[in-house]
Amino acid sequence: MNIDMIRAAAGRLKGHARRTPMLSSPFLNELAGRRVWIKPECLQHTGSFKFRGAWSALSAMDPDTRANGVIAFSSGNHAQGIALAAQRHSVPSVIVMPRDAPALKIANTRALGAEVVLYDRGSEDRDEIGARLASERGLTLIKPFDEPLVIAGQGTCGLEIAEQAKERGIESAQVLVCCGGGGLTAGIALALEADAPGLTVHPVEPDGFDDVKRSLASGGIERNNRTSDNICDAIITPQPGDITFPIMKRLCGAGLSVSETDALKAVALAFLRLKLVAEPGGAVALAAALFHGDALEGDDVIVTISGGNVDPDMFNRALQTLPQGIG
Amino acid sequence: MNIDMIRAAAGRLKGHARRTPMLSSPFLNELAGRRVWIKPECLQHTGSFKFRGAWSALSAMDPDTRANGVIAFSSGNHAQGIALAAQRHSVPSVIVMPRDAPALKIANTRALGAEVVLYDRGSEDRDEIGARLASERGLTLIKPFDEPLVIAGQGTCGLEIAEQAKERGIESAQVLVCCGGGGLTAGIALALEADAPGLTVHPVEPDGFDDVKRSLASGGIERNNRTSDNICDAIITPQPGDITFPIMKRLCGAGLSVSETDALKAVALAFLRLKLVAEPGGAVALAAALFHGDALEGDDVIVTISGGNVDPDMFNRALQTLPQGIG
Repeated sequence: MNIDMIRAAAGRLKGHARRTPMLSSPFLNELAGRRVWIKPECLQHTGSFKFRGAWSALSAMDPDTRANGVIAFSSGNHAQGIALAAQRHSVPSVIVMPRDAPALKIANTRALGAEVVLYDRGSEDRDEIGARLASERGLTLIKPFDEPLVIAGQGTCGLEIAEQAKERGIESAQVLVCCGGGGLTAGIALALEADAPGLTVHPVEPDGFDDVKRSLASGGIERNNRTSDNICDAIITPQPGDITFPIMKRLCGAGLSVSETDALKAVALAFLRLKLVAEPGGAVALAAALFHGDALEGDDVIVTISGGNVDPDMFNRALQTLPQGIG
Repeated sequence: MNIDMIRAAAGRLKGHARRTPMLSSPFLNELAGRRVWIKPECLQHTGSFKFRGAWSALSAMDPDTRANGVIAFSSGNHAQGIALAAQRHSVPSVIVMPRDAPALKIANTRALGAEVVLYDRGSEDRDEIGARLASERGLTLIKPFDEPLVIAGQGTCGLEIAEQAKERGIESAQVLVCCGGGGLTAGIALALEADAPGLTVHPVEPDGFDDVKRSLASGGIERNNRTSDNICDAIITPQPGDITFPIMKRLCGAGLSVSETDALKAVALAFLRLKLVAEPGGAVALAAALFHGDALEGDDVIVTISGGNVDPDMFNRALQTLPQGIG
């Protein structure tokens, strides 16, 4: 896992993934007390950075193997990234989803060309179903973060951050990255090590689900006590990956964590000041920049908005955090 | 008013205005029955294309004249564009706003560095107040659309559309533009005439406020019967401009109009499928592409989302048009 793999992924993604812009708002700068630069991966295909890793993995496969198809477990952003990347490679994809996933998420994944295989969380074993399908049909499993080609794809976001920071004359800054299993965080950290060594990555997680923050502090992999009951569902994983953690340990600064309320307030401010739709888990880095500035240093902070796949009710709940009469 | 003025404006805007991306979604393509390409000017500074025209006008002024400051009438997107452009040129700006404008709009305009002068709609004459201030302080009035330098600035959006269409191999398409006084529409039409002659602009307005559509049909300037009571407030003007109309008449195809309900549904779909915040008036072109496809021709349609300055209550009203359980 190295920078050459990220540069190769960037070559494969060219013309297929979006080069997302880097945005800012004078209102957010004032609120944060420093310049805040936003990398909106909610504008990536399928509404999250996950398409980068999915395309990277699919596009690097041996064509004969790829033609048999790919399989993934996810009801969220990784599922959609894999489904679209497979569709655009004209190969089949199978997404194994829980039967109680929202009907529209199932419909969307199907609409992106995937075959959805439903299982019962209570009585069926997801891994067993996946292994059987993979073996029967010769499908290749694409893991959501602990896979070098996926990390390389996410790292292309870091190459863009390095370029966009340079264009703005930013040589030194903290880069806050919304962090689940660490694929995006590790990928960006590797890219910045090579192309913008004055930029330091800090993972940001939800309070109470800060396995990466605690792992970085202790030096060994720490687990979360639970993996549900938080609105930042997109970035909640049991523990850092075996591949992502050593990279984060070598390259990242201390982790940060934010409350659900802070995440919702950041969603609302992204609406108001950036005209972007962020999901709560995709807004934790912005929340840290806006509401935990005392933990930061320097005049510039760069934040990822990692995804925007939020349902209308949750979005409206976020908007309720704005003062009355705003707009 | 010609293409050279637009190219000159593009030179002045470089590094100051954003080059907004061109986006798409397979879901919107399916709904429209053709490829839909979105030019999201809600991502422009201050949340609308108006910053382009404001910067174009300010940056072209004689520095001594500019140092005295500028003045504008607007409680909306033009006000914010002028305020920010003046602030970044380090010159004063005065925005004349009605006393009953929303408190936060007044606060925002002030936060962008403008002096806000309030007047009473019932008892005071806005134009008289503006003329007195301009004369006393040597301020230059910057009109919202019927001003060549402003049209030239809006036209830079058209230069970008021409480039982005070419990158995607699109040689022929209808370009739907959200239309008020016609500054953006005329500017884009001039830019495309020069750089992408296979692309034809069609203005899109709200039903019942379709002065441009009727003017194009009759060949002479037609007025709206009223200029209030529509949620697409950002694009409602009494009539096309004296400068913008002849340009639109020479270059545009037939106008289109959409209902408030269609505009709200387009706002909701921009949220769901593009992760963008559009205001109702900024979503009429997308609404026409999605819900009035029978009036269109060809495999590709390009639409502007002209702004995203919408209050949370209106946005939530738009989200209510989505089917239950979506997300």
